[in-house]
Amino acid sequence: MKRNVVHLADRVHEIQPFHVMELLARARQMEFNGVDVVHMEIGEPDFTTPQPIIDAGMRAMAEGKVHYTPALGLRELRYAVSDYYRSHYGVNVSYERIVITPGASGALLLALAAMVGPGDQVLMTDPGYPCNRHFVRLLEGEAVGIPLEASENFHLSTDLLAEYWQERSVALMLASPANPTGNIIPPDHLKALADCVTDWGGRLIVDEIYQGLVYGRPSETVLQHSQEAFVINSFSKFFHMTGWRLGWMVVPEGYIEAVDRLAQNIFLAAPTVAQYAALAAFTPETLAVLENRRQEFVRRRDFLVPALRDLGFGIDHIPDGAFYVYASSQHFSRDSLAFSHQVLENTAVAITPGIDFGEYKAKDHVRFAYTTSLERLALGVERLKSYIK
Amino acid sequence: MKRNVVHLADRVHEIQPFHVMELLARARQMEFNGVDVVHMEIGEPDFTTPQPIIDAGMRAMAEGKVHYTPALGLRELRYAVSDYYRSHYGVNVSYERIVITPGASGALLLALAAMVGPGDQVLMTDPGYPCNRHFVRLLEGEAVGIPLEASENFHLSTDLLAEYWQERSVALMLASPANPTGNIIPPDHLKALADCVTDWGGRLIVDEIYQGLVYGRPSETVLQHSQEAFVINSFSKFFHMTGWRLGWMVVPEGYIEAVDRLAQNIFLAAPTVAQYAALAAFTPETLAVLENRRQEFVRRRDFLVPALRDLGFGIDHIPDGAFYVYASSQHFSRDSLAFSHQVLENTAVAITPGIDFGEYKAKDHVRFAYTTSLERLALGVERLKSYIK
Repeated sequence: MKRNVVHLADRVHEIQPFHVMELLARARQMEFNGVDVVHMEIGEPDFTTPQPIIDAGMRAMAEGKVHYTPALGLRELRYAVSDYYRSHYGVNVSYERIVITPGASGALLLALAAMVGPGDQVLMTDPGYPCNRHFVRLLEGEAVGIPLEASENFHLSTDLLAEYWQERSVALMLASPANPTGNIIPPDHLKALADCVTDWGGRLIVDEIYQGLVYGRPSETVLQHSQEAFVINSFSKFFHMTGWRLGWMVVPEGYIEAVDRLAQNIFLAAPTVAQYAALAAFTPETLAVLENRRQEFVRRRDFLVPALRDLGFGIDHIPDGAFYVYASSQHFSRDSLAFSHQVLENTAVAITPGIDFGEYKAKDHVRFAYTTSLERLALGVERLKSYIK
Repeated sequence: MKRNVVHLADRVHEIQPFHVMELLARARQMEFNGVDVVHMEIGEPDFTTPQPIIDAGMRAMAEGKVHYTPALGLRELRYAVSDYYRSHYGVNVSYERIVITPGASGALLLALAAMVGPGDQVLMTDPGYPCNRHFVRLLEGEAVGIPLEASENFHLSTDLLAEYWQERSVALMLASPANPTGNIIPPDHLKALADCVTDWGGRLIVDEIYQGLVYGRPSETVLQHSQEAFVINSFSKFFHMTGWRLGWMVVPEGYIEAVDRLAQNIFLAAPTVAQYAALAAFTPETLAVLENRRQEFVRRRDFLVPALRDLGFGIDHIPDGAFYVYASSQHFSRDSLAFSHQVLENTAVAITPGIDFGEYKAKDHVRFAYTTSLERLALGVERLKSYIK
C-alpha cells in the first residue's frame, strides 16, 4: 500500500509566510483587472541598478567570467569592501574577515549556523526583520523578541536587554537603520549594547543592510565601536542590486574558518557575475548616483511623514534611515492586518501590516515604504485621505 | 572583563571542509611558482556558458531586469522547465511543482528543511555528494551512510536499504548520475527503491544535477517512475552555468506551500539575471551546443578509463554519466589522502581523495574528473605513469 505521507518538520509549522505576500497577490490581481495600485508595501527601491554596475556585470559576462569563485568570494571584492570601510567609515577591517554571500540572507544563515544550536536563544527586537526569527527556528534555536516602544523611539536599553538575557542566550540581533522602523541606534547606545553582550560571553549580530540610507546624520557602522560583532550587509538596498542576490558579512576573528567551511557546504559561492559587477559599486561615479538617490529618499520621507501624521497615523519620531515609516494605525483600527486589506480594496494603496514584523503591538501598526516616486506617494496619500477622513 | 568567547554550535565541529580545497590551495601555490598543474580534481566543466545563454543574460541586464523575482522563481522559467520535462522526458510536471532555487544547494536546503527535524534520519549512499550529510547535520538531523561496493557497480539493493531504514528514517537521498562514481541507477532499480520508500511513508530525494550528461544510454528522470520524489536539478553541470548559481527542484504535491514559505524566508529568490539567462537554456541552438559537449565528454571518458586501468587504478565498471571516474588507488596506497598529496607534489596532477565523499573504503579511492581537455588528460596520465610505474 502506497502511503504518500506528507511529513513536514515541526519547524515548518512555526515559520510564517509574509502576510504582505497575500496583499501583493491581491494587488497584482487588481492590476490585472486594470486597477492602478500605489505600492507602498515593497521593501525594494524603485531605482534600477546604477549603470556603472550594470556595465561591469555585462563586461564580466562578455569575458566569460561565469565560473565558481572561492566560497568566501572574489578576493578583489573582499579587498574593495575592506577599502570602503577604511575610506568611508575610518575603520580597518582586514579583507580576510569579509565574506561575500548570496544576499544578506546568506550572511544571516552563515552567522546563525555558526553559533546557534538546539535550544540556544537569540534575542532580537520586536518589531524587527521577520526572517530573523525564522532563521533561528530553522536551526532549532529559540528566537526571543524584546518589545520596543514607538514612544521611546524603539530604544533598547541595556537594562531591558539584561532582563531578557539568560544563560541560554548566545546572540543579540540588532539592525541599524532598522526595518520596519527606519530607526538608527545612536552610537553610544550601540556601544553600550555591544559591551554588555561581550561581557556576557555572547555575540552581537548587527544588520547594516540599510547602511548609507541615512538622512540628516552621518552613516555609521558598529565596527567603529566593536570588532567582536558579526556585521551583515548587502548590495541590495543602498547599492540598488536587489535581484543580484549579493551581500557580505564581516566575521569576528575566531569564526572565519568555521564560516568558510559552512559556506563551502551551504552555498559553494555567491553568484559570480554579481561579484564582478559589485566591483563597480564603490567607484566615485556610482557613489555620485547613489548620493542623488539618497537625497531623493530624503525628499520622499519629508513629504510622507507629515502627510501621514495629518491623516491621523501615529508617528512619534521621524525615522532617519532606510525607506520605511512604521506608523500607528490605532486611530483607524485595532487590527492592522484587516485594515491593510480594507485599504487595498477601497483605495488601491498597498501597505504592510505590522504582524509581518513581530507580535508586540503589531496589530496597531502598519509599515509604509517610500520606494516609489513622490508623485505616486502623493497619489497614495490623496486616496487614503478620501477613504479615512 | 571582556570575554570575546568564540562559541561555535556543535554542528560546526561535525561539518567537514572539502579536503580537496587544501589540495587546490597547494596547486594554486605551485602555479603561482610557475608549475603547470593538470587539474583532474575540479567538479566544474571547463566549457564556458553557451553563448545564447550569455546573450540572454546580457539582454536582461541591458533591459534593467535586476529586481527581485517571486520566491519560487520567474513563472516563464518554471513553464520552460515544465515543457522540458514534457518534450525530453515525456513526463507531465505542472509548473506549480517547479521551484527555481539559488543553485542545487538551495534546493537541497529547502527539501531537507521541509522534512528533517532533530533526530530524524536521512539515508544516503556512501560514497556520495559530501554536502548532503552536512545539510542534514545543519538541520539537526542524522545522516546515515549506506556503504556501496564498487564491485557491485555501487548498486543499492532494496534488501540493503531495508536493513538501514528505521522508524526515525524520513528520507533517502540518491543521485543519478552520481558524484563521485559517475554511476546511473537503472530505471527498474530506481523504481523499486522509490516504491519501498513510499511504502514506508518516507520520501525519496533524487539528485539529478548531472542529468543529460549520460553516455551510451538515454537520459532519464525518476519522474518517469514516481511523482512522489523530490527532484533536485541544476543549471550548473549539463547547461554549464556554474557561477550563475541557479538550480531547480520538483516538489511533490503537498509540499509546495511549505517550500514557498521556506524559500521566502531563507533566500527571498534566486538571482534574477540568471533566471532570464536560463530561459535560453532550452532552445534548439543551446541544446545543439550541449550535445557537442556531451560527445566531447564521451571521448574523454573513453580515453581516461582504459588509461587509468593501464596504470593500475581499479575501475570495476565503466561509469556512464557525469564527468567522474571513482577509482581504487589500493594498488599504490592505503591512504588515498596522502596519496593525492604525493601525486600533486611529484607530478603536478591534482585529484580528489575518496575521503571527501564518505567513509566507506574512502582511503582506497580517488576521484578523477574529466573536466579538462583530452590533451591535458593525456598529459596528466603521462605524468602519473612516470611517477607510479
